[in-house]
Amino acid sequence: MIILSRSEIEALVDLDSALHAVEAAYVAASDGLAMMPPVGYLAFPDKDGDCHIKYGHIAGDPTFVVKVAAGFYGNPSIGLPTSNGVMLVFSAATGVLEAILLDEGFLTDLRTGLGGAIATRALCRPDARRVAIIGTGIQARWQIRCLRQAMKETPLTFGIWARSQAKARETANSLASEGIDVSAAADLERLCRDADIIITTTPSREPLIRDAWIRPGTHITAIGADAPGKQELDTALVGRADRRIGDWLEQSLDHGEFSTAFKSGLITSPDCTELGAVLGGKAAGRAHSDDITIVDLTGMAAQDIAIANSILDAYRPAQRVDRSGA
Amino acid sequence: MIILSRSEIEALVDLDSALHAVEAAYVAASDGLAMMPPVGYLAFPDKDGDCHIKYGHIAGDPTFVVKVAAGFYGNPSIGLPTSNGVMLVFSAATGVLEAILLDEGFLTDLRTGLGGAIATRALCRPDARRVAIIGTGIQARWQIRCLRQAMKETPLTFGIWARSQAKARETANSLASEGIDVSAAADLERLCRDADIIITTTPSREPLIRDAWIRPGTHITAIGADAPGKQELDTALVGRADRRIGDWLEQSLDHGEFSTAFKSGLITSPDCTELGAVLGGKAAGRAHSDDITIVDLTGMAAQDIAIANSILDAYRPAQRVDRSGA
Repeated sequence: MIILSRSEIEALVDLDSALHAVEAAYVAASDGLAMMPPVGYLAFPDKDGDCHIKYGHIAGDPTFVVKVAAGFYGNPSIGLPTSNGVMLVFSAATGVLEAILLDEGFLTDLRTGLGGAIATRALCRPDARRVAIIGTGIQARWQIRCLRQAMKETPLTFGIWARSQAKARETANSLASEGIDVSAAADLERLCRDADIIITTTPSREPLIRDAWIRPGTHITAIGADAPGKQELDTALVGRADRRIGDWLEQSLDHGEFSTAFKSGLITSPDCTELGAVLGGKAAGRAHSDDITIVDLTGMAAQDIAIANSILDAYRPAQRVDRSGA
Repeated sequence: MIILSRSEIEALVDLDSALHAVEAAYVAASDGLAMMPPVGYLAFPDKDGDCHIKYGHIAGDPTFVVKVAAGFYGNPSIGLPTSNGVMLVFSAATGVLEAILLDEGFLTDLRTGLGGAIATRALCRPDARRVAIIGTGIQARWQIRCLRQAMKETPLTFGIWARSQAKARETANSLASEGIDVSAAADLERLCRDADIIITTTPSREPLIRDAWIRPGTHITAIGADAPGKQELDTALVGRADRRIGDWLEQSLDHGEFSTAFKSGLITSPDCTELGAVLGGKAAGRAHSDDITIVDLTGMAAQDIAIANSILDAYRPAQRVDRSGA
C-alpha cells in the first residue's frame, strides 16, 4: 500500500496533467458516468468545526476514492491550520485499499483551483486579459496559479481586492515571491468595471459584486458560495447573465451561487447548464463576445477522484488512469 | 499520527475492555448521544462488490471515527479476502487525523462478535447453557469467542450447524485448535429444540429457524439480516417473541430481522425495544424464565467508534476514553 505525506504529494503535482484529469472528470460527471452519493457530514458546533465525506467512482476507473475533509475554524488561534483531510484510494475491482494520501486538505485546495481555471478558460472571451480576484484566502492564490498555467499562452494581468487592503497587499507581495505579478486594488467597483474575468473566492453571506459594475463580455467564476446562505454576486446579475453554468447543477441551485435566484423564481433549472456538458461539447458555452457568463463551482467528488488518481499516476506511471478515449 | 497494521491491531485487542467499550456505546446511542448520519454506500455490481462508509461521534468523546468497509464477494476466487477496510480516527477538537487503523475488516468482525455477546449475555436465561450457532462464516467463530469471554463464569456448550455438514465439522475442528469445544450438529431442528441460546450468522434470504422448534425460555441473537431481503427467523417467531430488541431499531425494522414482521403489520415499533435502553436499565429485558427473547443486530457506527477507541486506548493508555461515568 502507498502512503504519501503532504510534502510528497506536493512534489508529485503536475499542473498540466492535473488540469487534464479534472477536466475529464467534469465531462464524465455530466455524462452520468460518476457515481457520487450525497456528501456525508458531521458538525462540531462547540468547536466551530465540521467534517465532509465525499466519495465516489467514475465508471471505468480502476479505483474509487473516499475523501474526509475536516474544517475547524478556531484552529489558527491555537497554531493549527483550519483544514485537515485525507483521501483513500481503493481498487474498484477488489476493494483493496491501495493508497492513503495524507494531503491535509492540500488536494482539495488544488482541485478547486484547477476547477476554477478550467471553467474560466472555457468561458472567458478569447481576448480576455484583465483578471480581478476577489478575496485573499488560499483559494485566491490557487485560482491565480492554476489560471496562469491553464492559459499560459495568454498574457493575463491580475488585480486583487479584499475588505482589508493590507491583506490584499500582503497577498500580492507573497505571490510576487512566486514570480506572479498581482496588483492590490483599493476600489472593488473599479476593479470589476475594468475586468474581463472576475473570480470570487470569499465566504461572503451578502452579495459583493453589484450588477451595475459588470460590463457585457465579462466572465465570472464564483467559488465561494458552497453552503446555504453564502452569496457573492447580486441576484440580479445572476438573472442578467447570458450563460449560467454550474459544476453540479443540483448543488448550485440548492446551496451555491445560483440558489437565491433559483429560489426566488428569477431563473429556472433549464436556464442553467452543467460545466461538463460545455467542456464535452454537448452544450453551448459563450456564444457572443458581449455575453456575460457565470460559472458557479460548488465542488464534487469527481474532482477528488481525478486529483487523487493524478497524484497516483505521477507516483506509479505504469498504472495510469486514461479517460482520454472515454 | 498513529498508523497500525492488522497484526498490530490484533495484538492490542483486550476482549474485556472491548466488551465494556461496545456496551457503553450501545447505551450512549440509545441515550441519543451518538451522532450517526446515514451510512454511505457505493455499489460495484460488475464485481459483486460494495463499500459502506459508517461514521459518527459520541458526545463527549475526544475523537470521531470514519470507517470505510469494502466487501468484494468474488475475491476468494482470486486468493483475496472478501472484506477490506480501514478506520480513521480524528480529533473532535481540531479535526486532526490522529490514527489510521489498517484493520482490513478485522475490527468490524470483532465488534460484531462483541455486540452479539453483549446482547446474548443481557437477554438469555441465567441458567442458559446450550448454545446453538447457525452458520460457519467468520461471524460464527467470533460469536463463540466473544460469548465465551463475556460469560466466562458460565459453562456454556456449543453446537454448530451449517447447510454443509463438512463445513460445520471443519469449523468445529478449527475452533478445537483454539481450545474451544464445539460439536457439529447434523439436524438443525434438534439443535434448535435443545438450545437455550441460538445465534444465527448466515446471509440467508429465507427463514431457516422455524417457529415450532423454539421452546419457551429460548434467547435468539440474529446477526445475519443486515440488508433488504435477508431473513433468518420465521416471521411468526418474530411475532411470537415476548421481547424484540434491536441495536438500532430504525435499521432493524427497515432492513433487519424484524422488517418482514414490521412491514406485514404483525409487529409495530412500540412492540420493540432498543438494546442500549435495556443495557442502560431504561427498558426491561427478559422478565420471565419462559420468555422468548430475540435481539436483532444490524451494526452501527457507535460500535466502530468504541472498538477504534478501545484499540487506541490500549496503544496509548494515557489518553484513555472513559465513558463509565456517563
